[in-house]
Amino acid sequence: MSLLVTGSIGIDTVESPSGKVEDALGGSTIYFAVAASFFSPVRLVGVVGDDCPKDFLKPLHDNPAIDMSGLEVRQGSKTFRWHGRYHEDVNERDTVSVELNVLGEAGPTIPESFRDSRYVFLANTHPGLQLELLGQLAEPALVVADTMDIWITEQRSAVEDLLGRIDGLVINESEAKLLTGTSNVVAAGMEIVKLVRRFLVVKKGEHGALLFAGGDVFALPGYPAVKVVDPTGAGDVFAGSMMGDLAAADRVDSASLRRAIAYGTVTAGIELEDFSINRLLAVTRADIESRLKEFRGMTAF
Amino acid sequence: MSLLVTGSIGIDTVESPSGKVEDALGGSTIYFAVAASFFSPVRLVGVVGDDCPKDFLKPLHDNPAIDMSGLEVRQGSKTFRWHGRYHEDVNERDTVSVELNVLGEAGPTIPESFRDSRYVFLANTHPGLQLELLGQLAEPALVVADTMDIWITEQRSAVEDLLGRIDGLVINESEAKLLTGTSNVVAAGMEIVKLVRRFLVVKKGEHGALLFAGGDVFALPGYPAVKVVDPTGAGDVFAGSMMGDLAAADRVDSASLRRAIAYGTVTAGIELEDFSINRLLAVTRADIESRLKEFRGMTAF
Repeated sequence: MSLLVTGSIGIDTVESPSGKVEDALGGSTIYFAVAASFFSPVRLVGVVGDDCPKDFLKPLHDNPAIDMSGLEVRQGSKTFRWHGRYHEDVNERDTVSVELNVLGEAGPTIPESFRDSRYVFLANTHPGLQLELLGQLAEPALVVADTMDIWITEQRSAVEDLLGRIDGLVINESEAKLLTGTSNVVAAGMEIVKLVRRFLVVKKGEHGALLFAGGDVFALPGYPAVKVVDPTGAGDVFAGSMMGDLAAADRVDSASLRRAIAYGTVTAGIELEDFSINRLLAVTRADIESRLKEFRGMTAF
Repeated sequence: MSLLVTGSIGIDTVESPSGKVEDALGGSTIYFAVAASFFSPVRLVGVVGDDCPKDFLKPLHDNPAIDMSGLEVRQGSKTFRWHGRYHEDVNERDTVSVELNVLGEAGPTIPESFRDSRYVFLANTHPGLQLELLGQLAEPALVVADTMDIWITEQRSAVEDLLGRIDGLVINESEAKLLTGTSNVVAAGMEIVKLVRRFLVVKKGEHGALLFAGGDVFALPGYPAVKVVDPTGAGDVFAGSMMGDLAAADRVDSASLRRAIAYGTVTAGIELEDFSINRLLAVTRADIESRLKEFRGMTAF
């Protein structure tokens, strides 16, 4: 089933205790699309500036499962840039610098050929833009979105509008707590799931994820990762694998959501073993299957 | 199979966003013994002062599964007291006051009739005392201990001696990181398990637990608890249920450790629904079984 993703494309500089990369491929759309492509064809919608190096997106252009017709190279604009530095404890990071550039301008347009997309992921951006993009779609079967603290605090009513129009929300634990003003993540989840049409996934990083769907609650630990080089994009890889698996199955019930979240968890566990999307480019679907099998063994009781 | 626990008995005052209790039954041995008693007979070893109210330990004396012959009422001494205050986020707490009292004096003695105990849990105390107690046992089949940050930093070599002489260690995530000086809990676990004879359990509170046993890694999420009145003792309840189930099964392999950890998780999830041991006194083994069944449903994929 067709899967569309909209979100950021960035030129990242990342420092971690394991090393440093400069001008690396980043942004939510990139991580999402590469992860989703293991499971399903994916349609990418995003904007870069005319400063974007010619070969920068080559790994995506070369991937037959990724349709790049929704990539806009905006003349006279500059590509989004982010520079982050992870602490010795890689669960903590500082943002060294951010240049919004083209992300601060008008959003992308969904090409005519993508408007019939059935599965849709609206990666984090201004909720008003997410709603606008949603309005460009003909008849999506499942719309899932991400958001972040700044929109929850500064664009509260737009976030609430968005929640009422999407099927699923995928956010971090801190964002779930912020959205509800409660310190208990389970209570927060039970409250937020009532605001969306179908489900909520709360990402807890190394501690795993929680799914709330109607009265159903599913708890999954994180993949016990020893090698953590660069956690950038792990949340988008989680969402990409999850949505890719859901789109491939074309089924959104409790069992398929749980399996999709398990795929998200193990693929994210692979991704953080190297900088940028490097590790994902080096593995195959069989490696993901093997990791899932290992993870089942690690969680069975 | 006989199960023995040594540790603290305390008179607790606890404040949480849900209310306050004064002079309530507390201490690691108490929480452990009550939880373990759902699974196995348990022998309690601990000391109170002569100030301890006559009926204070009645719930334990009244429990036919708990043998209180190892309780010493020390004349001229005062009982350990602890006063804690939980924040709005109950994952954080302040210690308002501690009076070590009898815990600062000589340790307890294991009665002759208990020295043949096969399963043993040495709750947190000075590692030198844990070793001394261990030396009083004839031929234990499985010795498991807890420890805490103060001993890891101030009694490092005694902690290392202890680790070499126990089968299993059950500690918090922060203690595992402190013990190894690493910020990755999985790497920490893989290092610590080499120092003990058989296994390490890392408790992550609401985020669940990790088991390391030889090369085996097991990850379990926490029980998704909505009602959290008082988390005091949850770690000891976890250990008590785990050890109680292991002693009852008289088997310590990967499958039995995993099941025991799941029992620990769900029983701890019950315990924190009320102050002190109140909730545990109100439930039966059937309630724990029903919670385990629910938890299996919440974690299956």
